[in-house]
Amino acid sequence: MKKIITLGEVMLRLSPPGEQRFFQTNSYDVEFGGSEANVGAALAFWGNEVYHLTAFPEQEIGWAAAARLRRNGIKTDFVKFYPGRMGIYFLEQGAMQRSSQVIYDRANSVFANFDGSDINWDAVFSGAEWLHWSGISPAVSKNSAAMTLKALQEANKRGIPVSGDLNYRSNLWQFGKKPYEVMPELMNLTQVMIAGTRDFSACLNIEFEDFEHAKGYLFNNFPNLKYLSKTERTSHSSSHNTIVGDLITVDDWYTSKTYDLTHIVDRVGTGDAYAGGLIHGLLYLQPQDAIDFAVAAGAIKHSVPGDVLLCSLAEVHELVVGNAIGKIKR
Amino acid sequence: MKKIITLGEVMLRLSPPGEQRFFQTNSYDVEFGGSEANVGAALAFWGNEVYHLTAFPEQEIGWAAAARLRRNGIKTDFVKFYPGRMGIYFLEQGAMQRSSQVIYDRANSVFANFDGSDINWDAVFSGAEWLHWSGISPAVSKNSAAMTLKALQEANKRGIPVSGDLNYRSNLWQFGKKPYEVMPELMNLTQVMIAGTRDFSACLNIEFEDFEHAKGYLFNNFPNLKYLSKTERTSHSSSHNTIVGDLITVDDWYTSKTYDLTHIVDRVGTGDAYAGGLIHGLLYLQPQDAIDFAVAAGAIKHSVPGDVLLCSLAEVHELVVGNAIGKIKR
Amino acid sequence: MKKIITLGEVMLRLSPPGEQRFFQTNSYDVEFGGSEANVGAALAFWGNEVYHLTAFPEQEIGWAAAARLRRNGIKTDFVKFYPGRMGIYFLEQGAMQRSSQVIYDRANSVFANFDGSDINWDAVFSGAEWLHWSGISPAVSKNSAAMTLKALQEANKRGIPVSGDLNYRSNLWQFGKKPYEVMPELMNLTQVMIAGTRDFSACLNIEFEDFEHAKGYLFNNFPNLKYLSKTERTSHSSSHNTIVGDLITVDDWYTSKTYDLTHIVDRVGTGDAYAGGLIHGLLYLQPQDAIDFAVAAGAIKHSVPGDVLLCSLAEVHELVVGNAIGKIKR
Amino acid sequence: MKKIITLGEVMLRLSPPGEQRFFQTNSYDVEFGGSEANVGAALAFWGNEVYHLTAFPEQEIGWAAAARLRRNGIKTDFVKFYPGRMGIYFLEQGAMQRSSQVIYDRANSVFANFDGSDINWDAVFSGAEWLHWSGISPAVSKNSAAMTLKALQEANKRGIPVSGDLNYRSNLWQFGKKPYEVMPELMNLTQVMIAGTRDFSACLNIEFEDFEHAKGYLFNNFPNLKYLSKTERTSHSSSHNTIVGDLITVDDWYTSKTYDLTHIVDRVGTGDAYAGGLIHGLLYLQPQDAIDFAVAAGAIKHSVPGDVLLCSLAEVHELVVGNAIGKIKR
Amino acid sequence: MKKIITLGEVMLRLSPPGEQRFFQTNSYDVEFGGSEANVGAALAFWGNEVYHLTAFPEQEIGWAAAARLRRNGIKTDFVKFYPGRMGIYFLEQGAMQRSSQVIYDRANSVFANFDGSDINWDAVFSGAEWLHWSGISPAVSKNSAAMTLKALQEANKRGIPVSGDLNYRSNLWQFGKKPYEVMPELMNLTQVMIAGTRDFSACLNIEFEDFEHAKGYLFNNFPNLKYLSKTERTSHSSSHNTIVGDLITVDDWYTSKTYDLTHIVDRVGTGDAYAGGLIHGLLYLQPQDAIDFAVAAGAIKHSVPGDVLLCSLAEVHELVVGNAIGKIKR
Amino acid sequence: MKKIITLGEVMLRLSPPGEQRFFQTNSYDVEFGGSEANVGAALAFWGNEVYHLTAFPEQEIGWAAAARLRRNGIKTDFVKFYPGRMGIYFLEQGAMQRSSQVIYDRANSVFANFDGSDINWDAVFSGAEWLHWSGISPAVSKNSAAMTLKALQEANKRGIPVSGDLNYRSNLWQFGKKPYEVMPELMNLTQVMIAGTRDFSACLNIEFEDFEHAKGYLFNNFPNLKYLSKTERTSHSSSHNTIVGDLITVDDWYTSKTYDLTHIVDRVGTGDAYAGGLIHGLLYLQPQDAIDFAVAAGAIKHSVPGDVLLCSLAEVHELVVGNAIGKIKR
Repeated sequence: MKKIITLGEVMLRLSPPGEQRFFQTNSYDVEFGGSEANVGAALAFWGNEVYHLTAFPEQEIGWAAAARLRRNGIKTDFVKFYPGRMGIYFLEQGAMQRSSQVIYDRANSVFANFDGSDINWDAVFSGAEWLHWSGISPAVSKNSAAMTLKALQEANKRGIPVSGDLNYRSNLWQFGKKPYEVMPELMNLTQVMIAGTRDFSACLNIEFEDFEHAKGYLFNNFPNLKYLSKTERTSHSSSHNTIVGDLITVDDWYTSKTYDLTHIVDRVGTGDAYAGGLIHGLLYLQPQDAIDFAVAAGAIKHSVPGDVLLCSLAEVHELVVGNAIGKIKR
Repeated sequence: MKKIITLGEVMLRLSPPGEQRFFQTNSYDVEFGGSEANVGAALAFWGNEVYHLTAFPEQEIGWAAAARLRRNGIKTDFVKFYPGRMGIYFLEQGAMQRSSQVIYDRANSVFANFDGSDINWDAVFSGAEWLHWSGISPAVSKNSAAMTLKALQEANKRGIPVSGDLNYRSNLWQFGKKPYEVMPELMNLTQVMIAGTRDFSACLNIEFEDFEHAKGYLFNNFPNLKYLSKTERTSHSSSHNTIVGDLITVDDWYTSKTYDLTHIVDRVGTGDAYAGGLIHGLLYLQPQDAIDFAVAAGAIKHSVPGDVLLCSLAEVHELVVGNAIGKIKR
Repeated sequence: MKKIITLGEVMLRLSPPGEQRFFQTNSYDVEFGGSEANVGAALAFWGNEVYHLTAFPEQEIGWAAAARLRRNGIKTDFVKFYPGRMGIYFLEQGAMQRSSQVIYDRANSVFANFDGSDINWDAVFSGAEWLHWSGISPAVSKNSAAMTLKALQEANKRGIPVSGDLNYRSNLWQFGKKPYEVMPELMNLTQVMIAGTRDFSACLNIEFEDFEHAKGYLFNNFPNLKYLSKTERTSHSSSHNTIVGDLITVDDWYTSKTYDLTHIVDRVGTGDAYAGGLIHGLLYLQPQDAIDFAVAAGAIKHSVPGDVLLCSLAEVHELVVGNAIGKIKR
Repeated sequence: MKKIITLGEVMLRLSPPGEQRFFQTNSYDVEFGGSEANVGAALAFWGNEVYHLTAFPEQEIGWAAAARLRRNGIKTDFVKFYPGRMGIYFLEQGAMQRSSQVIYDRANSVFANFDGSDINWDAVFSGAEWLHWSGISPAVSKNSAAMTLKALQEANKRGIPVSGDLNYRSNLWQFGKKPYEVMPELMNLTQVMIAGTRDFSACLNIEFEDFEHAKGYLFNNFPNLKYLSKTERTSHSSSHNTIVGDLITVDDWYTSKTYDLTHIVDRVGTGDAYAGGLIHGLLYLQPQDAIDFAVAAGAIKHSVPGDVLLCSLAEVHELVVGNAIGKIKR
Repeated sequence: MKKIITLGEVMLRLSPPGEQRFFQTNSYDVEFGGSEANVGAALAFWGNEVYHLTAFPEQEIGWAAAARLRRNGIKTDFVKFYPGRMGIYFLEQGAMQRSSQVIYDRANSVFANFDGSDINWDAVFSGAEWLHWSGISPAVSKNSAAMTLKALQEANKRGIPVSGDLNYRSNLWQFGKKPYEVMPELMNLTQVMIAGTRDFSACLNIEFEDFEHAKGYLFNNFPNLKYLSKTERTSHSSSHNTIVGDLITVDDWYTSKTYDLTHIVDRVGTGDAYAGGLIHGLLYLQPQDAIDFAVAAGAIKHSVPGDVLLCSLAEVHELVVGNAIGKIKR
Repeated sequence: MKKIITLGEVMLRLSPPGEQRFFQTNSYDVEFGGSEANVGAALAFWGNEVYHLTAFPEQEIGWAAAARLRRNGIKTDFVKFYPGRMGIYFLEQGAMQRSSQVIYDRANSVFANFDGSDINWDAVFSGAEWLHWSGISPAVSKNSAAMTLKALQEANKRGIPVSGDLNYRSNLWQFGKKPYEVMPELMNLTQVMIAGTRDFSACLNIEFEDFEHAKGYLFNNFPNLKYLSKTERTSHSSSHNTIVGDLITVDDWYTSKTYDLTHIVDRVGTGDAYAGGLIHGLLYLQPQDAIDFAVAAGAIKHSVPGDVLLCSLAEVHELVVGNAIGKIKR
């Protein structure tokens, strides 16, 4: 059981039940999710001691968000509460040829205004063995960009490994800086980068031809970098995808098996489940086993409603070895 | 934004939730639907000014039916209310190798007794650019057959184009006339006919060998006819169909791409979505684009619960061009 | 059937089902509500032609909000759509000794940024016989205060009677003006004021001793004023209130009977139902009948889930005359 | 355990969940109910062998109706299935000052067309010790009136006691006969009549001044009559009633205690629960205990959702003796 | 319509709705199921007179279990009620690559303590034409093993054919005997054995190489044996299986067509549906038709929520002949 | 923020939704509850650091139970997981004159077999300022009785105050000892006893005439005793109770105001909410304020679904001072 720190915004997720559309729904299912806390929840479910850093509104809905983190096994000792609003995202699950849709309503949230100045970094990182961040936090606001940088500096100062899911989303960067003005400094403090070619291009303002191209550049220019990892997804429809993942060091390249994913239940958070699986793999397994575990974790997440992979270590390992898939376990 | 008139019965649709059977359900989901109003709803969702002609019972459930039309964007200014009962259809959604089942309980409905004698046809058709009917109305009762004929005559008198979905259902024609005693006169007043070979055979009492055969006969014998259109559906199971559509003029034949539809959510109303798409296409697009748009609209409907395609123009166009199918739109 | 104009924000209302608390809920019931549109919905349900003036976000949730207005019988021809967010309010229904709670998340909504500059006032008021506003709109933002004033000026210019529910809420006035800097000008253009002593004190910055005191001041200083109306509510618990209402002219004072309201279902919108009843009463009934009708409408609203009184004229009249209360109507 | 026969229509009951109105509901809760089968279900729950005589449509919804009778412990060996439709009633539960509403859609049901000609009366009545009917059956159609008469004749022929709940509903009698042309013959074959003054007046076409008046007439003119019984209900609101009941012989008058019923859950079927309780009481208890048991059974029904009292003998007896009302039984 | 006896435990089944996991659910859907009663329910649905032998707790949940059997058409005249607890199984439906999970909580149930000593075997078997048992009952406890043996002896004594689904589950046999100490005696009294190679090996303590091997041994050593039957299932995922079945006599081998089952709704009870179909087939059809009917019944069960195939004879026959699969039946 | 220890079994609670009966429900709402953990949850909600001592099954449902404690703010660091079953209680909510019913299915649970031998008492009590137990634990099994004693000894050894809710339930004591053989030793280690006259009589095998009588005996014979507390409840129906509470020292007697509780939502856990309120009061308030706070907490619990009071300090204080009861808080 290792102490792991994750950092990022957690939003109220509101989605019409089943396959209903926003236009017709009479209720929203309530979840709470955010990329980095989703990663933390997977790691906590597997027995790690995960602390999430974030800020919530000081009212009932903020309390419910913290309660959801605790339910998921995440420690909320460092969560802050301030007056303000909760970030929200509305999610309409796609089906068949109809895509899933997300409507963000996250501007001016308590988290976006949170600068982390009252975080006790010594307490946070005491005994910690990993820090995970994503490219969403630095995109949200100047404050969160600064807080993310601070967290990475504090972790590096203490020799704690850092993973980052670059997760470039063009419509988020609206606080006045370009990604390539912010991300390189953060990437330089990161030992494990999770991203595809397009993310690297956007974050570095370099048009990479392909992943090999990016890989060469990255290992040459980011001396702290130890691992690159990416997934390739083919989207046949909202209900049918295939995925495969890679873990890459400067010298080696490990590829998982490919999963054919039909009858998809909830596509959201599958990348986070894979990232959680990867961190678990790098902490406890050999590289090939790590990427196999990570992609299996991501695959199973497609079958679990909500943002979070709620799945035991044993279940992920069973999928990796391929026993009894789809049989009833009694 | 064009003014479009649709005419036909709207029924209360009662269906067990999820995949439950009639035998086991403890509740019914409530929708309201009818072939022609479903067509109208799609057209209204895309910005047209759609008026539906129908009659409802003068009580709460009739009011709820009218409210549902309004929710869907349809104008109910010409809807009539009389004492009587609402037509009902019970729908059990199929799954896998088990077929969907419909139990009709529509006899003696207010609509079946409605003869349209107090409709102000001048007001209805003032500024209108399209009329759509289906073969269900003339099958329901002598009154509706007469009202449908009257509507078509009024539209033709004013030079308003008319589309008709022949929609032959053998178990409906019970008021004493055969389809071929009623339909030819209506078809003669129709510029766009949507139907397959079997429908044409039944409506004309001619055993057509194939669609080509029917096509020849129709363009020869119905001088007002401009367009034929049909869809071909292969039903692998309740959860898996493929569809393709055609639009045919006397000289040309336009075929859409074929959609492989797995994980079907709601099969009902898919033909109406396609008919709505076709009318939209004929009003605003070129023939090939029209049939592409129509079949894409029909395809997406399979993913939307309820009778009605609740889907924006942009979403249909995205499917036609095939971008980002099944990706999450943020 | 008279044409009536209402104006104001409509919010997405999210409430935990049943008596659940925010902390524990796993879904929110979806309603759409806003004081003035609630008034309009009651009037539309009774057969009036009601147009609501508001602005919604140009996306699916905004479309759903407009669809809900249409379902309720309100015409949305003058509703505007712009990019932006939907105002939200979270409602936890109280029960017993536990109060209902509202968490507002309405800042920076499309409506708050809406200045009405593209409203065609001639079209809006053509044939209109009433305008209703509330004190919420001028409190929300500078833009809405200006738009409300403009609407009142346009109505007065055309001799259309105006009612206003002053509805003072201290936590709303945050755009830099005090109520007494804004409200008197609006009140001066209003023929029917609905408010209690506390509202009048806040809006005029005068500490009235009691309602009589306020009444004297108002009829002396607002020459356009024809009617004052207020309700008195005694709150024994969230589940048990009593209400009574008054309608006051410069010369007369009409009091309704008192309703003992136990087993309350939904307290929200009861004041709006009463305001709608009052407008109906003033348009169609004598003063005593008007206040009786208004308070009965408000009483019944306590039994209807959602923001809106969904209740026929006949039902309200039955309560006024007191026949068959609580019997099953077959 | 005694064999008891009940006879009458069972309808599909569709009601909006909770306190929702017809206008706003998106689903209907499904129950099956009918006055006489409700009586039978209570008696079956208490261990009697109850056979219900009725007819259902020969399709899935008819099968579900029969399954519901069986679930409730009623034997369906004599239930008939024919092509046709199921009678439906839509029920909106009232709350507070808003009344419950029933919309009947029962015309032309399989039961209304059922003449009982293929019932094997010997099998039905072999070993039977009671027959119960209500005034609804003879009101529904000429066929059911004839079948009811036949059943009563067969029971009387065999010396089996008959109870009848006169249950006069003015809007039902539409098949061409007046109640007083049909009911006297049925009443003459009935040993236990359940009805109030108004029912007796309508069934006999005699304006009785009060119950005493009716009582005198009835015992004088109906030589088979042994017991009269009635309940008095005061309806303060849909959520608050009081009830008391009486059992009357030619010589004696037994009155139950009065129940104050607040927080009513489901008012429908409470009269049937009381009738079932009365039959049980007359079969197994002394007269005072019988009316006490009957009214307690009726009182408890107000707390049970659905048409049917699902309540053990022990629970009814506990209420009669008044122990531990409202305590948690562990 | 034939009288058929089934015998075995019925448990309360609790499953999270939809694809939710145990960890996250806020409610359980309630079903009641057990292998042999599931078989009985299918046979009852098809018109047979099925009596199930079991024991339930003498309280509300036991009553509800019996009510569910009755709803499904099973006669409960021989069901016993004793103080004690209900056996429970928690079922989490799998999806995609995630397996279904069952958590049993059946120890010390009323059934496990039931020794059948107060069963009136003459009444049970009077007129009966079939007995069905499964290998679960003798595994549960010494008492049930003895009762099962008694039932088989009584049936054989009367010449009533017996079918047994061997259904070996290693984790059940915990009362002190090995399967091969108990099962051979039961198999010797069984004319129709449903099992695969693995079941036969465990029940006879013989390591069969393949089914042919087992077949030879069985027909040589069990003189009463007339039919063997098995299904082969390939599990691609929880949502996608293929199945095929065989019926084998000493001389002949009948194989059904293979069904490709995608979009699986509920995998539980599919073997029981097939067993029910087989019994029906052996009672009413020729061997090839019997196995075709059985496997079609099993296939359709995958589409029906709950433990029980709720499906008419006509629907199974339609699938066998392959008409109109997946079309809407109107 | 004080560290508080609670100890006891937590069960899976299964209850039919709304007012449904066990017999008719198709789903169970899932809660987790137990007297002492309910107390702990209230204290945690108010900001205390609460650790609960218990044992759960080592599978998904046990994990969900622990997750629910964490959601409620309780620390689960000392919770143990072993193979075995979860204790269950089925709860049917009463309504009106119908009582709530509990069916226990808790025998042989992991907790009942838990002897606490692997608890690290030093870690548990380090820094702790309170221990709370109830009379349910020593009643469940010999193991739990021993573990409870051990916990009290460890607390007393460290001078940590102990409260005990005697909570005598006659049907629990089935492991071979009488309450009066076990309880006195535990009471002797308890500073705050919560109980009524009947509990004291049973635990001491002394027939106390009234509470005064018990009080005298207790303060004379239990030298560690500082406070007695009790509530008096009058149960008018399941929907209407009144409660009042007392706090008693050897010299003083403090009585709360009386609450009239109509429209009760969930009666379960109201005693635990009051006990939690009392502990909070004794830790932070003066005696009169303590009993006022405790009874207000208990009163509000009647309005909250589930076992646990989910209610802020501010809300309880508002009820004590009686402001704005039942108003909407915006």
